Amino acid sequence: MARRIKITIEYDGTHFHGWQVQPYDPLNPRRSSRTVQGEIESGLQRLTGAFIRVQGASRTDAGVHATGQVGHFDWPEGFEIPDERIAPAMNARLPEDVAVIDAETVSPEFHAQHDARGKIYRYRLFCRKARSVMHANTHWQLREPLDLPAMHEAARHLVGAQDLSSFAVELKTIQEQRAKTGLPPLETVRRILRVDVFELGDLNSPHAEKGGMELAVEIEGSGFLYKMVRTMVGSLVEVGRGARAPAWMAEVVAARDRAKAGPTAPAKGLCLMRVLYG
Amino acid sequence: MARRIKITIEYDGTHFHGWQVQPYDPLNPRRSSRTVQGEIESGLQRLTGAFIRVQGASRTDAGVHATGQVGHFDWPEGFEIPDERIAPAMNARLPEDVAVIDAETVSPEFHAQHDARGKIYRYRLFCRKARSVMHANTHWQLREPLDLPAMHEAARHLVGAQDLSSFAVELKTIQEQRAKTGLPPLETVRRILRVDVFELGDLNSPHAEKGGMELAVEIEGSGFLYKMVRTMVGSLVEVGRGARAPAWMAEVVAARDRAKAGPTAPAKGLCLMRVLYG
Repeated sequence: MARRIKITIEYDGTHFHGWQVQPYDPLNPRRSSRTVQGEIESGLQRLTGAFIRVQGASRTDAGVHATGQVGHFDWPEGFEIPDERIAPAMNARLPEDVAVIDAETVSPEFHAQHDARGKIYRYRLFCRKARSVMHANTHWQLREPLDLPAMHEAARHLVGAQDLSSFAVELKTIQEQRAKTGLPPLETVRRILRVDVFELGDLNSPHAEKGGMELAVEIEGSGFLYKMVRTMVGSLVEVGRGARAPAWMAEVVAARDRAKAGPTAPAKGLCLMRVLYG
Repeated sequence: MARRIKITIEYDGTHFHGWQVQPYDPLNPRRSSRTVQGEIESGLQRLTGAFIRVQGASRTDAGVHATGQVGHFDWPEGFEIPDERIAPAMNARLPEDVAVIDAETVSPEFHAQHDARGKIYRYRLFCRKARSVMHANTHWQLREPLDLPAMHEAARHLVGAQDLSSFAVELKTIQEQRAKTGLPPLETVRRILRVDVFELGDLNSPHAEKGGMELAVEIEGSGFLYKMVRTMVGSLVEVGRGARAPAWMAEVVAARDRAKAGPTAPAKGLCLMRVLYG
C-alpha cells in the first residue's frame, strides 16, 4: 500500500504564479509560470528521482501567501525515509521562498483538498499616507485610516451559512464550464464561522504617531468561492473608508450579485493561515 | 537662514550596505556600496538638482532595518515646497526598499544625531526547526525554542547606567583611532532604560502547533556602542537556550570584556524603531 505523506507548506507568493502548475500555453510560450506546486514537485524529483504529483488543499492565486497550506503525495516505493527527515530533505531542494514546515505519514485515504473541513485566511491592511517599505509585498496599503468599529459591524453580516454568490468572481463562467463537462453547479451556500477585524498594534512604532495603522481581517469558513476573501475584504474596506454604511453589507449578501459588492482586494495582502481537518 | 528639514525614514536593510555612504576603495573597486544615505542624497539631487548632505541619527550596519530612522538636511535656497509635499516628492524618486514617512521644517539648530536623547531598537527572533520563509530577512532563526522567563531575568542585569564595554565590538580599535586623531576616549557608560523580551503571539498560526515561536527583544537606551544591541541579544540567546544561567549576564557586564559576552546576533533581525528627541 502506498505511503501517503501530508505536508504543511509556507511560501511567499510574491514571485509565484499561484499554487497550481500552469499548462504550457503555445500562444504565450514565454509566459512565466513558476508555481508553488511546480517547485515542490521539482524538489521531490531531485530528492527521489521520481515524478510525484502533489495535491494541495487550496489553489492560491498569484501573489497570495501561505503559512499553513497543506498538501499530500504518495512516497515512491523503495525509497525509505523517516517522517522527521522529510521536511529537511525537501527544504534543501526548495528555493528560498517556499519551505515544508511539517511532514507526516497519514492514512492512504487522506486527501488534502477533499478532507479539509475549513480554512483560515488572514488579510493584512496597512493605512498610511507615505508608501510602505516593510509591508510592500504582504499588505494592501491604503492612504487613509479605516473605521474599525464600522468594519466590525459590517463583518457580522458575513457570518453564518448563506448564499455568497455576491463575493464570487467569475461565477457565471465557472458554472458554464461545469455544465459543459457534466458537473453539477458549484454550491454557492458557504458557512463562514468567523470574521475578525483587528488592529495589529505596535505601540513603539512611529506609525502610531504618523497616523499609520496595521489591520488584519481574519476569516474562517467551511469553504471559499473564487476570490471570495478578497471580495469580502474589498467590501469591508468600502465600509471602513465611509463610502458605505455597515448595513450595506447585508444588502450585498442578499443581492447574490457580484456587481453589488466592493472591489476585489489585491492578492498580496492575503495569506492562507491554516487548513482545518476533522 | 537655511531651512532645515527633519525626515523620518523606513528601510528594508537587506540590500543595503548600511546607512552611511562608503568611501570609494581603490583596493576593492568593484565592491557594492549601495547605502541608504546615498539613495536619499541621490533622490534629493534628482528632485532639486543640488547635492544635499543628509545627516542620519544612527549609522545602521549592513542588513539592519529601520522603521523610524531620523535624518536632517538643509533645503536649497530658491526651491519652494510645503512640508506635506516633501515626503511624496522624495518617495517618487526613491527605490522600493526605502521611503520617507514624514518630513517637517525644524529649527536650523536641530541635529538628528547630536540631539537624539535615546533610541528604541527591536530585535526579532524566530524559533522553529524548519527553515522560515516569511521571516527570512527580518528575524534571526533558531532551531530550538528559547526559555523566555530566563531571558527576561537575564535582561534585568542590562538595565541602568553602567559601563557596557562587554557588549562593544571593536572597542579597542575605536579608542586607538580616537587617540590618534586627538579625540577623548569614547564614553562606555551608557544608560539602558528598558529591555523587554516578549512573544509576538499568533494564535491562528500553525507555528504555535509545530513548536514555532516568534520573539522580540526591545531595547531603549540613551546611546549605543558599536553592535551593542546585537551583542546583548546574542548573550540573551545564550541564556534562552540554557547554555548560561540568567545571573551570568551580571558577570558579563562586570567583566567589561567583549570576550566574556555571547556572540553577535545577525544584522537582519535588528530594526531601529524610533529615535527620541527631548
